[in-house]
Parts: sequence; structure tokens; C-alpha cells
Amino acid sequence: MKLNFNSIKDIISNYRLYLSKKISIKGWVKHFRSNCFIIISDGSTIKNIQIYVDKHNWVFKKINIGVSLEVIGVVVFSKGKKQIIEIYANKINIYGNFNPEDLQKTILQPKEHSFKKLREQAYLRFRTTIFSSIMRIRHNISFSIHKFFYKKKIYYINTPIITTYDTEGAGDMFRVTNNDFFGAYTYLTVSGQLQGEAAASGLGKIYTFGPTFRAEKSNTFRHLSEFWMIEPEMSFYELNNIMSLAEEFLKFIIKYVIKHCYEDLSFLEKNVKKKIFKILYSILDFPFEKISYTNAIKILKFSKNVKFIYPVNWGADLQSEHEKFLSEHYFNNRPIIIFNYPLKIKPFYMRINNDNKTVAAMDIIFPYIGEIIGGSQREERYNVLLKRMIESNLDTKSLWWYLNIRRFGSVPHSGFGLGFERLIQFITNISNIKDVIPFPRYQNNALF
Amino acid sequence: MKLNFNSIKDIISNYRLYLSKKISIKGWVKHFRSNCFIIISDGSTIKNIQIYVDKHNWVFKKINIGVSLEVIGVVVFSKGKKQIIEIYANKINIYGNFNPEDLQKTILQPKEHSFKKLREQAYLRFRTTIFSSIMRIRHNISFSIHKFFYKKKIYYINTPIITTYDTEGAGDMFRVTNNDFFGAYTYLTVSGQLQGEAAASGLGKIYTFGPTFRAEKSNTFRHLSEFWMIEPEMSFYELNNIMSLAEEFLKFIIKYVIKHCYEDLSFLEKNVKKKIFKILYSILDFPFEKISYTNAIKILKFSKNVKFIYPVNWGADLQSEHEKFLSEHYFNNRPIIIFNYPLKIKPFYMRINNDNKTVAAMDIIFPYIGEIIGGSQREERYNVLLKRMIESNLDTKSLWWYLNIRRFGSVPHSGFGLGFERLIQFITNISNIKDVIPFPRYQNNALF
Repeated sequence: MKLNFNSIKDIISNYRLYLSKKISIKGWVKHFRSNCFIIISDGSTIKNIQIYVDKHNWVFKKINIGVSLEVIGVVVFSKGKKQIIEIYANKINIYGNFNPEDLQKTILQPKEHSFKKLREQAYLRFRTTIFSSIMRIRHNISFSIHKFFYKKKIYYINTPIITTYDTEGAGDMFRVTNNDFFGAYTYLTVSGQLQGEAAASGLGKIYTFGPTFRAEKSNTFRHLSEFWMIEPEMSFYELNNIMSLAEEFLKFIIKYVIKHCYEDLSFLEKNVKKKIFKILYSILDFPFEKISYTNAIKILKFSKNVKFIYPVNWGADLQSEHEKFLSEHYFNNRPIIIFNYPLKIKPFYMRINNDNKTVAAMDIIFPYIGEIIGGSQREERYNVLLKRMIESNLDTKSLWWYLNIRRFGSVPHSGFGLGFERLIQFITNISNIKDVIPFPRYQNNALF
Repeated sequence: MKLNFNSIKDIISNYRLYLSKKISIKGWVKHFRSNCFIIISDGSTIKNIQIYVDKHNWVFKKINIGVSLEVIGVVVFSKGKKQIIEIYANKINIYGNFNPEDLQKTILQPKEHSFKKLREQAYLRFRTTIFSSIMRIRHNISFSIHKFFYKKKIYYINTPIITTYDTEGAGDMFRVTNNDFFGAYTYLTVSGQLQGEAAASGLGKIYTFGPTFRAEKSNTFRHLSEFWMIEPEMSFYELNNIMSLAEEFLKFIIKYVIKHCYEDLSFLEKNVKKKIFKILYSILDFPFEKISYTNAIKILKFSKNVKFIYPVNWGADLQSEHEKFLSEHYFNNRPIIIFNYPLKIKPFYMRINNDNKTVAAMDIIFPYIGEIIGGSQREERYNVLLKRMIESNLDTKSLWWYLNIRRFGSVPHSGFGLGFERLIQFITNISNIKDVIPFPRYQNNALF
């Protein structure tokens, strides 16, 4: 049986094809004016469609905001100025009523709600203009990521969620229990990198894109207990190569989203925060600035007219205020890549440079949001890696296979990690990360 | 710094561009003949490339299977008949040696290994011809799935992995613990369907594609504890519409894979199992046969010359032998869709038909592999759903939000679920599901 209805997106985008034609649309009532018109949305686009209904139509007795219905009618040019076309209704079928008393208790009632309120009714917020807009942008970002890697023949790998490896230092992990089902303690993964390296050591170039977990009790605007991460891992790539790949990757996504989500981004720019497009174009306009950690420290130390809360010393990690100063002030709102960090503040798998004091690490800092990508060349030398793991008090036994990759035709390789929700936050300019994921998980919340 | 090497896939596919040019490739030694040539692979393609090396070259003293290296040389027409081009080496740089004694202990040694043996060294099997081939096919299937939905404006939604909902009946779940982190017992999801329905009730058409979990102790060729699932959920779709979508979807993927994985599929056809292409084309050639459960029972009851182990009775679930008979014999190796199953053997969320005895469910059965997709129209009537949940002894309190979707502008809607690894199994004709996922998790195994 052929589908007997069209999406509002299809009708509005291709309205010339539909003019004077009889069509059916199915959706939910957004607004209405009794004896006059009904505005319908169906989630396919941020745009609604106006239905002209004869004022004597019985439907006005049953209509309410949130009611679901089918409209069969003819596409005509609109007499109003707000839209090009509207539908002249011949017939209306109501699917689901909506008790007006119930309406008042939900976020579907026609008034502005805080993001917090929307979150409390997360199962309904897909029907709100703002959240459906964020979700369509998320969808497009996700596709652009797969498309970027696909075009470059970088192969998608699903690394495991349940692991036996208890990463020390990388944050608290969730334990998985089921009567010793696996014959070992198991945890929810914090990263697919280590398995990704194994895959890259055969397939050459791979990426992961899957959920990762942190049991940290940091209930902030930038933390989730469950979030999606993108992690490419590239054989024969050195630090410079992975920096270039990351820059090309971020620019590709942002160009893609500007092109394919123009309406949704414009809505966000108008209604939530200003400057969305300006910020996005600022990423595209110039090459990212590259600066070594050591030079970054020099700049921070000798910058006048600025006082930092945290001291600036070679060997200490850079704080947000430092990154913010460099990216927003010193480099005039440009993305920067800081590389070659001190060995002691970076994880065991990063490659030690010839100076024996720094590792081939790189962080990409965006203006306004801070670190967006962290990556490195990986230590491919067996003995150096082993020594570093022992010094870091890591369990070399449980990571025997990771070490073994370095024994059987080891190659220089590099990779990076990008938190998917942080990228969406940056692109949409939504301040709380809980509002860019369908059902956020964080301390004391695993609702729905 | 620009990348200074090419993939073997690029050079072989576009060899006319590279003839007589100086290039660099980086990869691992697959085979070699001392004082003659080296065969290199880099994971980008199933094809290897032959390197002609001067017989006096020092490299033959260090070369071994599995060694990683860079070859700088010139692309020339090959004098041999097995390949069009080869590389005349000017310079060879070795990255990672490989102890010949170690080689004997690994699956990288040049002899045939059982799939079980490859699985024991899963972190290395990406370097084997067969497993890298399966992984490239998996990558292409995955992309074709995203592409299909993207073109149809069906939006990608990430449903949560950690849930508070303990599905009774849908199989054992893994519990997640971390000192009551969430203030509630939490589990690993068995399906994103319920949250997917919520998303579809605003965005209209959505799909999920993410990991799901079963703690079942069934260590078979078709079970994993952790596997990926694709679940579209479509507002305003009735049973017939979702059947059509599922058929179009499966045919799209298979066409895509035949086109984009021809070399890898040909390799599998030659080396592992026969008939891969014949089976794939059998899915494309005809419309899927649609038959109601009631008629299926009639056919099974009155078929002569066949004896079933399990009795055939209206009301009992169909067994594999029944499905196999219908698809492979009665319908002559064609995919079939069986619909309208008895209410009592199907879950609470499926829509009750007017006969009050059956639900609007559908299963798609493929020849040789059996059920590949299960779906249904969902029960959108609040009172009917509530009654059904109570009868099924479900915790209506924890699913208050799922019920509420039916109170606020409820719409007819339908969806289906497809196990990603089972689809890969079907397409590659690999018999054990553990061999189509990078790091399989099953009872007593969460290695790597």
C-alpha cells in the first residue's frame, strides 16, 4: 500500500509541484484561530503549514493545541504574507484528542518553558520547536561525520561497550554485573581508542562513533554520564598529519551543517543566542593557529594586562582561562591547536618526543567553548610504552594485547577523540549539554 | 604537512594517474620471495600490491611476513599476469620488525586458521585477509543504512544505553552499578524502541542505530551479549507501510553492498562459502511474499511430504523449521513477510487487530537465515494499551511516560527492529555471528 501523505518539508520545498494539487498531511496542531485557520507541524522541518478551514467546519469544536490529525486539501498560494503557500482543507480527520486540562500540565502548552522544564518532560520535548530543531541539527552533524570518513575510506568500527579494562586515571567507570556472566569484572567503556588502535593496525584507517561512559559526579553544563564519542585512529599518521585531519574534519562538518541546517540554525540564532553563524564562520575563515605548549606558556607568562587565577608554569596543565585567553584574545577569536605537552600531564599512550620531556599530543581549542578535540601520536615503541605503563602504575597484564600490537609489525599512528555532544553544543550554542541529547544521563537521573 | 603516502586502493583504482610516477605506500608484508619481490597490504582494499626489489637489496635480510614498512618507488606495468601494475622500489624503510619466533605463535603466520583461532587473537585479526574483508563490508552496510534513512529524511536518534526500565520477558538484562549513582537501579538497554516512539511522536520519522544487550546464556552461532540494532519508528505508518519500508530498506542495502563491496564479496564467495551473490540477488529479484500467520498455519498443516518436529497449531509460535519450509520450499527461496500473529505470543506494544485475536505484527523471513526483521504497528490507544500492560503484568508505573504518549495527541505509528550483525551474517554468509563484529561479547568472554 503506497503511503498516502506527504511531509510538510516536502510540500514547502517543492511547492511548485504541488500547487493546485490535492494532498494529505499528517501532524500536530501548533496553533489555531477559531473559525479561521489551523497551523500544523509534523517534525520534518522547523516550518509549519497553515490550513485554511471553512469557519463552519465542525473541527473547530474539537481542535486544540497538540491534537493530531490528517488534513486532506489543496495547495494554494497564501493570501497572507508570512508564508508562500497554504492548504485549503477539504477534509480533516482527527487521530488523537488532547484533554485541555492535561495540556496545561505539559510543555506542549503555548508558552515559553525553561530548558529545565523541557528536560523534566524529555519524552515530549521532541514536539517542541526548539528541541526538534536541535535534534535535526544533531542528525545532520552525525551524518556529516559518517560521510566525511566514508569519502576518505576511513572504516567505521564498533568497539565494545562492555570491557574488562578498568582504566585508572581516566575517570570513574560504571561496573556491569550479572552473576559473573563474563567470568571477569566488566565495566562500561570510557573510550574505544585502544581497540581502535588494534583495528587500525590492520585496516589502516578507522574511526569509532559510539557511546562512552563516565561515572564522575560532576553535574555541570558540560558533563554527561553517557555520551557519544568519535575517535579516528590512523596508521602511518604522525602528529602533524592528525592535526591536519582534525582541522579538515571540523571544517567539513561545520560547512555541511551551515548548508543543510540553515533554517534550524537561523531559528536558534533568532530565538536563543545571537552570533551562531558568526561563530561558525570564524572556524572556517582561517587555518587553525598552531602553537607548542612551550610557546603558549611563554605568551601567557609575558602577557600584560591580564591576571589569571591559576599560575602559569611550564609543566602545569593549561586551565580554561588560559585557553580562553589564547584563543579569544591573543589569537583574536580563532581556533588554535596546542601541541607537544609535558609528558607528566598526559596519558601513557602518547608518544614521547626526542626531548624526553614532552609528548606528541595536541588539543584543539575553539573560542567560546574551549577544548573540542584531544589527540596524539601514539607510542609505537614497545619498550618505551612498557616503561611508561609501569611508571604510570598501569596493569600491564590486562593490556597484554595492546602492548603486543607493538611487537608484530608496529607502525607510527595517531588519533583523536571528539565528544559528539560538545560539538553539538558548540554548533547550536546551547549552553547545557543535557539539552542536545535525547535522554540525558547524569548523576541522579536516568529517567525515561 | 601534507600526507606523503597513498593507499593501495587509490593506486590500484587510479593506476593510470600514477603510471611512471614516484609514489610512497605504507603497509605490512603479506608474502615475499627472497631476492625477488615483496607483497604488501595496507587494509584499504582486499588487493595487495607487488613490489619489485633489486635482488641485492639489504632489505631481504630483514624482511619477514608481518613486518611494517614504507616503499618509495615508481608505478610500472607488471610483467606478471596476476596484476596490472607493480611498484619498482627505489627505497624501503622498515618501521616495525617482527620476531620470526613470535610469528609462529600468531594468526599472522602464513597458513589457514580456523575462525575460532582468529577470535582468540581478535586484536590481530584485522590484519587477516578474511576478517579485514568482513570489516570493510560491515563498514559499507553501516553507511548504506545511514544513507537510506538520510535520503528519506528519517532522523537519527541516539536512545539511551543505561535505562531504569527492566523489561520483563524480553530477556535477561545486565545491571549497571555504581553506588546508586542514578538513585535507581539501572540496566543496559535491550531496545531503543520505546524511547524511539517518543521521538517519533514529535519528529515524525526517526531511527536508532546503537548497541543493545542481552544477558542470555545462549552461546550459539546467532547470539551475542552485545550487538548493534537498527530500529526505525514512523508516525502515521500502518502495518502495510512499515512492511513496504522494511522491504525497500533491505533491498537498498543489498544493492548498495553488491555495488560497493564487489571485490570483498567475491573473495568470500571463492574462499569461504559458495553462492553469496546468488543469495543476494534472490532478495532483489522479486517482491517479498506477504502471508498472514493464519494462512501460513494452513499451508503448514496441509503440506504433504514434510514432517515437523514442533506441532503446527494456530496460536503457537512459528519455529525455525516452519519458517524455513515456507521460505525455502513453499515459496521457492524467496523472502516472505508473515503478518497478523496471535496476540498471546507477541509483546504488549503491538496493536490489537479488529478480530481481537491477532496483533498487527510482521516478521520478515529470509531463506537460509530465517527471521531478519521483526516489526509491528504499535498500540496507540491509551485504554487498550493500559489493559494489555496490566494483563502482561508490566510495571505501568515505570512506563508512565510511554503511556502518556497516548494521551497527548496520539497517532498511529509503526516500526521494526533489525539486528545489525545478523544482517552482516546474511550478506557475508559467515556462519558464526562472533566473526562479524570486531570484539564479540558472549558468555565467559569479554576479552580485549
